[in-house]
Amino acid sequence: MLLNGHGGPELLQLDELPVPVPGRHQLLVEVHATSVNPVDSKIRRGGAVPRAMPIILGFDASGVVKGCGPDVSGWREGDLVFGCPSLVGPGANAEYVLLDARAAAKKPASLDHTAAAALPLVGLTAWEALHDRARLQAGQTVLIHAGAGGVGHIAVQLARLTGCRVITTAGRPESIAFCRDVLGADEVIDYTATDFAARARELSGGRGLDVVLDTVGDDTFRRSIDCVAPGGQLMTILPSTPGDRAQVLLFRSITVHYEFMGARVANDLDPGRQGAILSSLANLADRGLVRPHVSAVFALDRLADAHRQIDTAHTIGKIAVAVRAA
Amino acid sequence: MLLNGHGGPELLQLDELPVPVPGRHQLLVEVHATSVNPVDSKIRRGGAVPRAMPIILGFDASGVVKGCGPDVSGWREGDLVFGCPSLVGPGANAEYVLLDARAAAKKPASLDHTAAAALPLVGLTAWEALHDRARLQAGQTVLIHAGAGGVGHIAVQLARLTGCRVITTAGRPESIAFCRDVLGADEVIDYTATDFAARARELSGGRGLDVVLDTVGDDTFRRSIDCVAPGGQLMTILPSTPGDRAQVLLFRSITVHYEFMGARVANDLDPGRQGAILSSLANLADRGLVRPHVSAVFALDRLADAHRQIDTAHTIGKIAVAVRAA
Repeated sequence: MLLNGHGGPELLQLDELPVPVPGRHQLLVEVHATSVNPVDSKIRRGGAVPRAMPIILGFDASGVVKGCGPDVSGWREGDLVFGCPSLVGPGANAEYVLLDARAAAKKPASLDHTAAAALPLVGLTAWEALHDRARLQAGQTVLIHAGAGGVGHIAVQLARLTGCRVITTAGRPESIAFCRDVLGADEVIDYTATDFAARARELSGGRGLDVVLDTVGDDTFRRSIDCVAPGGQLMTILPSTPGDRAQVLLFRSITVHYEFMGARVANDLDPGRQGAILSSLANLADRGLVRPHVSAVFALDRLADAHRQIDTAHTIGKIAVAVRAA
Repeated sequence: MLLNGHGGPELLQLDELPVPVPGRHQLLVEVHATSVNPVDSKIRRGGAVPRAMPIILGFDASGVVKGCGPDVSGWREGDLVFGCPSLVGPGANAEYVLLDARAAAKKPASLDHTAAAALPLVGLTAWEALHDRARLQAGQTVLIHAGAGGVGHIAVQLARLTGCRVITTAGRPESIAFCRDVLGADEVIDYTATDFAARARELSGGRGLDVVLDTVGDDTFRRSIDCVAPGGQLMTILPSTPGDRAQVLLFRSITVHYEFMGARVANDLDPGRQGAILSSLANLADRGLVRPHVSAVFALDRLADAHRQIDTAHTIGKIAVAVRAA
């Protein structure tokens, strides 16, 4: 499924390309399922780094190994695999995709391909942000924005498993119910009715939060600064700027982590770390402790509809895309 | 020495106030020496958080313990002490000051009071930024801006002791010579003649730097973003904003630490950590491994001249202020 120009979902069109050939560290993967993330929509609209057309989007994959590059070890043809294709290369909206073998992992046995394909990008983002960057500790109070969203719903689960008290934000009744009843968040702030920063501060006893994960950006990022505790940490997955709140970041000696899960593979920055994270996530999934929530599955030839759904910004959990019949 | 309004150094005037009474965790200290830091000038000009007048500035102290609050342990009258008064309370431009006993340490025996008073604020800032925040590791390449400045000249020494390759910036011939010949920086970039970010990137083999310490702010902060390696860390001691470079922070998954050494005591955030850091710095000073460089000493009644010197932004190392004759 190729994107031939920047604009609306109608620019996504089926076409035929040769099967790609794996590079040194790459796997050739027969894609059974992929997913749509907000980053697909951002690239489609032209809001990210300029790239040559046509572009194959789709930065999650679950499928079957069909070939290995010369320096690949630990994988063989027929293995079931899940992972993220490079964010700066061809994606998985296709019958075949290349994955960095070091950054991929064995598919969780308990999840079908559509559920498995819902996990890598958001799971890596949430894990890197909470564990690798913020080094989350049991007993901390954490604010996770948009707990019903893709990254948010995995982050809430990981933070609860770590032993943290989890506060999250949501705006629609079904999102609030999902955060509370399905994810088990300790507190859900309706950001449409309440000043979330004031409320989160209040819930922390006035001190502010140890860790805040911003998945919304811009004004949400800036207002979040007001509820981070002195010495606390703020993570964002967007190119947010503090503006006039930089003075607060300074006075409270706050750390801001900009988290982009694509940076590891794009920069060859220990991509094996992501393989290890995905293996841990697969283990948690197989033990029933982390569950990717798939709210809709679209066939690949209906990818444009999947984009229209993600563009509502009202998706609960994830949108999966089935490339082959299960 | 009281500041009675915001403006120029002439607003600093001698006056008489009662000797302060130590709170629970505080020491009453007879001040022998203090120093001037850029933050004094910033508060004087009204550029920091609004505070009630009159203000006693001076956020370093070296002197003699004259009294202990009821919850103080490990200190007794007559002890020689150095440390930082709270940045949000009365400073040490006075005969007596209160120090948080937990955040203070025994004065280094090898330094006289003026040299000892040159170390706490810049030493704590450099140590917290490099060690507590960035967790500097031997073998990393570090860019430290304004290596001849107050924070910079201690940071260069600490980074070299850690086993890092240290690149620094300086603009005047005497600053460049100081960085190279006195501090032993591995590389000194003349930022008036060279694009420092391009040069630092080149010196890192094109990859960018693991750790960058910005002590200048604004445009220097923003341009520094371009020479931080993917996964690297950028520290700033100013309320800097990334502006349109936020996208680079994101794509490279960079961590930004806002470092304000006053946050620990102001927020009761483990102030004992600063006592431990100052003890380590005193030990390094006594072993001749860290040397605060005092380029001028002013008597307290000439504090205005010390401010005029710091306002040039051309001070090499530190300006000390002698409160009592040595």
